[in-house]
Amino acid sequence: MAGFWRHIKKSKLYLCAKNKEKMAQEEQDPSRTEISQLGEFGLIERLTKGIRHVQPSTLVGVGDDAAVIDNGGHLTVISTDLLVEGVHFDLMYYPLKHLGYKAVVVNLSDIYAMNAIPKQITVSVALSNRFSVEAIDDLYAGIYAACERYGVDLVGGDTTASPRGLLISVTAIGQGERERLAYRHTAKKGDLICITGDLGAAYLGLQILEREKQIYLSDPNIQPKLAEQAYLVGRQLKPEARRDMIEQFAEVGLVPTSMIDISDGLASDLLHICKRSGLGAILEESGVPIHPDAQLQALEFKLDPITCALSGGEDYELLFTIDPKDVDKVKYLPDIYLAGEMTDASEGVMLHTTGGNIHPIKAQGWKHF
Amino acid sequence: MAGFWRHIKKSKLYLCAKNKEKMAQEEQDPSRTEISQLGEFGLIERLTKGIRHVQPSTLVGVGDDAAVIDNGGHLTVISTDLLVEGVHFDLMYYPLKHLGYKAVVVNLSDIYAMNAIPKQITVSVALSNRFSVEAIDDLYAGIYAACERYGVDLVGGDTTASPRGLLISVTAIGQGERERLAYRHTAKKGDLICITGDLGAAYLGLQILEREKQIYLSDPNIQPKLAEQAYLVGRQLKPEARRDMIEQFAEVGLVPTSMIDISDGLASDLLHICKRSGLGAILEESGVPIHPDAQLQALEFKLDPITCALSGGEDYELLFTIDPKDVDKVKYLPDIYLAGEMTDASEGVMLHTTGGNIHPIKAQGWKHF
Repeated sequence: MAGFWRHIKKSKLYLCAKNKEKMAQEEQDPSRTEISQLGEFGLIERLTKGIRHVQPSTLVGVGDDAAVIDNGGHLTVISTDLLVEGVHFDLMYYPLKHLGYKAVVVNLSDIYAMNAIPKQITVSVALSNRFSVEAIDDLYAGIYAACERYGVDLVGGDTTASPRGLLISVTAIGQGERERLAYRHTAKKGDLICITGDLGAAYLGLQILEREKQIYLSDPNIQPKLAEQAYLVGRQLKPEARRDMIEQFAEVGLVPTSMIDISDGLASDLLHICKRSGLGAILEESGVPIHPDAQLQALEFKLDPITCALSGGEDYELLFTIDPKDVDKVKYLPDIYLAGEMTDASEGVMLHTTGGNIHPIKAQGWKHF
Repeated sequence: MAGFWRHIKKSKLYLCAKNKEKMAQEEQDPSRTEISQLGEFGLIERLTKGIRHVQPSTLVGVGDDAAVIDNGGHLTVISTDLLVEGVHFDLMYYPLKHLGYKAVVVNLSDIYAMNAIPKQITVSVALSNRFSVEAIDDLYAGIYAACERYGVDLVGGDTTASPRGLLISVTAIGQGERERLAYRHTAKKGDLICITGDLGAAYLGLQILEREKQIYLSDPNIQPKLAEQAYLVGRQLKPEARRDMIEQFAEVGLVPTSMIDISDGLASDLLHICKRSGLGAILEESGVPIHPDAQLQALEFKLDPITCALSGGEDYELLFTIDPKDVDKVKYLPDIYLAGEMTDASEGVMLHTTGGNIHPIKAQGWKHF
């Protein structure tokens, strides 16, 4: 592996000319593989499949909501996310304060999904000269608001120019206890599937914002109607992480047998748990929590509400499994819904609809590429 | 602070129309502050001046090479960097393998500059569809080569699309001991200034690559001449972090009184130590190590070699101070040069030239904005 730079030592340098020719040839090469052929998860799998850890302090690496590091004492839990303008957000309807707030919250959500407590974040920002200092102040006001609300410290980062657009990279660092961490790969057959809050609203909020943007672009004199959809739009523009749930789990002495945050959509995230745990699942449509506003708005958009819940994403709720003997611990907790059971892998990952049908659940996460 | 999203709760929503108008107005607002007016360090200072830590585990936050976290046991040291195409690298002469390698190394360098040992990294990448899967394989081959050489584990990250160009965000996580960490703010008056390796070569390597690119653009038939400048070009395209120095320090029982890695240029990085330690310094030009190839190449470009060393940057060498009683510990170590002394703040930060003159040293770090 160490040989790849030998061309420098042996004076066989990469030349600009050769490099440019190589790239031009490569772009027309019929054997070239487009990233879209693999998709995000396929690309990650390809890039990480050869990883071998050499550090004894690395307890968990790629493949869960966060990595886990043992430097003695409490465990350190680390998660990172990249938000890109034009891919993850549209500044036409995304106020910078909200964006800063959300960029932090989505990372904290990953730490909570390990049943750990976020303590610090680093924030790196790349920005073009389209942004004034005052605009960046707004972004950081949102970042600091999230820090204050969740009790985390901003401890580092990087600030740089970007030729175009805004990009935010947040890394969250948390503290966890060995016997309380909740992974993706540890669900057991017969475990009960639980979901917090409600699903699909953030997706519908985004659809409303997109619709109003199109209306505005076609006629700037028409005022957008957003006020009556405050709940849905708020779920998109200002998500919260379920710190309260992790605190409740600690109070009642519950350790979920597995857990993930619902960022890609219930379908995709349940499939992650099933795949990593080597299991199947039966999900009850009747158990999937959907807010009444989301129900109504889905119908207005001629969408099936359960499809929005399964494939919408960005809910930042928790999906977790519990040992059936722990059912009394969650039964009286607010905002937790029982929604199915883990099964043998051979039974597949299935949805039991309210109409009595059984369908396989397919991943429909975000496709950026 | 928590009130900024009240407009959602009270249904006074940000509207697309208003948001767009607001941004358009803002772009023409004469009171708008351009980021270039503040510069990178000014912007960071503005954005971080209000930080108060609430977590007892946060020992050191913004303002050093890395943050320091105490989760019990060993200390956890964290640093993060963002590399942006068109700002930090030009793919016309930057092979993707080298880029991946360098993106990791520059972060490890920050951890070593704390006198700590990097153990893990996370890598996030945003890329446009200009890049094939094979190209990304190259990038990751470089990332994994750096992991292997420095014995660190890749434990997480994020992969996303970008509307244009390539962006890499690396976070390095290290382990340190409380009594051995070396900060920027702890130099003492009378301490000796030490520099490892040699300075200015990476900057001159970049100038060579830029020159050959311009020649190639004007006539693609001219073959670039890079082979005879292998040392300088190699310092730019394949920097290494000074792990060996940190290991030597441990062997001889040395803890530098302060330390920083030379990424922005000797001038800028010495000024960081002086500012944070509340001291001045006298730097001896004769003590600043410059490679013979860099000396010659600087003269060919009609540049003063010491200016390249002071302002070039990207050397990833270490600048550190020691108590004079420790001088015997470094005297016989290879590749360490004594280059001056810390003085009272009132004496300023000065360069004593080989010609016998004394000039104030000014920061000339990278200006991205």
